[in-house]
Amino acid sequence: MKIKERCVVVIPGWELMSYFSDTTNVCWFLQQDLAEAIKALHREIGNAATEERYIVVGTGSSQLCQAAWFALSSLSEAKPLSIVAAVPYYSTYEEQASYVQSQLYKWEGEARTFNKPGPYIEMVTSPNNPDGTIREPVVNRGGKVIYDLAYYWPHYTPITRRQDQDLMLFTFSKIAGHAGSRIGWALVKDIEVAKKMVQYITINSIGVSKESQIRATTILNELTKTCRIKSESFFEYGYEKIKSRWERLRWVVDKTGDTFTLPNYPQAFCNFFGKNNSTFPAFAWLGCKEENDLERLLKEKKVLTRGGDRCGSDKKYVRVNMIGPNEDFEEFLHRLLTIRNPNCFEP
Amino acid sequence: MKIKERCVVVIPGWELMSYFSDTTNVCWFLQQDLAEAIKALHREIGNAATEERYIVVGTGSSQLCQAAWFALSSLSEAKPLSIVAAVPYYSTYEEQASYVQSQLYKWEGEARTFNKPGPYIEMVTSPNNPDGTIREPVVNRGGKVIYDLAYYWPHYTPITRRQDQDLMLFTFSKIAGHAGSRIGWALVKDIEVAKKMVQYITINSIGVSKESQIRATTILNELTKTCRIKSESFFEYGYEKIKSRWERLRWVVDKTGDTFTLPNYPQAFCNFFGKNNSTFPAFAWLGCKEENDLERLLKEKKVLTRGGDRCGSDKKYVRVNMIGPNEDFEEFLHRLLTIRNPNCFEP
Repeated sequence: MKIKERCVVVIPGWELMSYFSDTTNVCWFLQQDLAEAIKALHREIGNAATEERYIVVGTGSSQLCQAAWFALSSLSEAKPLSIVAAVPYYSTYEEQASYVQSQLYKWEGEARTFNKPGPYIEMVTSPNNPDGTIREPVVNRGGKVIYDLAYYWPHYTPITRRQDQDLMLFTFSKIAGHAGSRIGWALVKDIEVAKKMVQYITINSIGVSKESQIRATTILNELTKTCRIKSESFFEYGYEKIKSRWERLRWVVDKTGDTFTLPNYPQAFCNFFGKNNSTFPAFAWLGCKEENDLERLLKEKKVLTRGGDRCGSDKKYVRVNMIGPNEDFEEFLHRLLTIRNPNCFEP
Repeated sequence: MKIKERCVVVIPGWELMSYFSDTTNVCWFLQQDLAEAIKALHREIGNAATEERYIVVGTGSSQLCQAAWFALSSLSEAKPLSIVAAVPYYSTYEEQASYVQSQLYKWEGEARTFNKPGPYIEMVTSPNNPDGTIREPVVNRGGKVIYDLAYYWPHYTPITRRQDQDLMLFTFSKIAGHAGSRIGWALVKDIEVAKKMVQYITINSIGVSKESQIRATTILNELTKTCRIKSESFFEYGYEKIKSRWERLRWVVDKTGDTFTLPNYPQAFCNFFGKNNSTFPAFAWLGCKEENDLERLLKEKKVLTRGGDRCGSDKKYVRVNMIGPNEDFEEFLHRLLTIRNPNCFEP
């Protein structure tokens, strides 16, 4: 809101009409200004290498994740290609990998116990959704790795290194919260993978909204320009905001006695902020100490969460959104406070 | 350009941030204003019934087509469900039905010779892409029919009836040409089909760009408001424009002697314009009289087209875009004029 005049987008009626953005680019539907804005932001934050990489824009990183699976499995001799992720994993991977019953790839769940021979894809989500941990591949048998780095921004976690993986996914949704724009991007080293991802998006939706692309451009450019100005930087603001929410959540969990658990995160030196920071994930991986269906129990208290079983984990855990509107978060803390011990769950 | 001030869209930085548009709607990511704009335009043009139907918005009608296949096949007992279309068909259906190698549905091509027993989906594209003909189902064995009505607008073809089919697809791209926005909509009678389509889009891309939705709303509302004002109506303008292009193309084809063929379209009474009109498709289904690979031959003359074989038809036909920029169309006519007889194709 502080820099609102500079984040407005004005689109005349006759602009952005073509399917095409830049026919000389592998990703022919990517607006050139957006590509520049993405590179500038990564350069300034220091969280990912963009040099010698192709940028593929998608309708959110969901579409890009499916585009990446399509690309890697199309280029693989063995089909269906197994897709795995270490538990607890992003709850939507399983649905995304299964809903169209593709013969190209197959969801195989937990990466740690995965022992099928042959090629595979491992999803490495870091910081991890839903539990906020910093992740590395666990299979390590020469398969393909997709790094889902949606939350690798300095308000959520210390930027300890410039990620330079072969296939990295980012999204506009989780930087300043513009989920409604449905803009994600992949940084892809191998041109053949990039081309196949572009093919997927071409067939799936003939490109990506130009309106969203130019709005993302405007806003990303402002985030870049202001990121070192303490009073205007969204990353400073976001860091203080989510840190304070986490502190309050931990206080409430403490107040409820032995009812709930929360993960603890190690401190690390953040290259962007130039100091030691902790991780403050965009969601809380809340557990209860007793064996319980925590999602159901919280629902009875009118708290909507995502059950741990949907993340390949246990029903005694849930994922709670930490980046909703202020009033929702306040109400969540308030309702949580009314649960003082496991017996409160009893009818 | 004449009504340009009224088609501008201004989006403040903090608006349209949520994934959600209307959680009470089956299509929870559909902006309510867009739904109203769609209904108002169909009501004014008289080309489709919107009453007692669910509107599902998509990232172009391509995504909706795949959502519809997912929905109908998920709800069908027999899988894979056959998908057919009468030749010549929209060249992209085959790729869309095949690329992820889904076990839910299978492309079976030409509808006229389709004789597998059991349930099936027939695509009825009317006016047809690529040949502009008005179509009805041809299988007629109780299967599901998807009406792709992208071009059922009065500048392209007489509006002879208010279409009231169970599943109809429309797109923002082909009304005033806003292809870059990637907005399509489905009008769906059966709530179970609508819900499954929404499920597809939820998993595939977690909704549809809000920026594109509000821009489409603004522009569709202007098209509706001005559609009866002769000096401002886009449909009047578009009709005169494409009619004149067709007249000039027919003149050029005539000049080239016995080289090329073009379809002839019957006149019909257009309820919108209140007079007899012909069809003026957005593409020309150009043929050559001799057996030839017309796409290749035209490419040698630097005319890019889509070969008839990609539409399940013969290489002696190509699909030529009729709604590109003025200078492209002029250049196309100019190059076509240089081909006076089939011998010109020889090296």
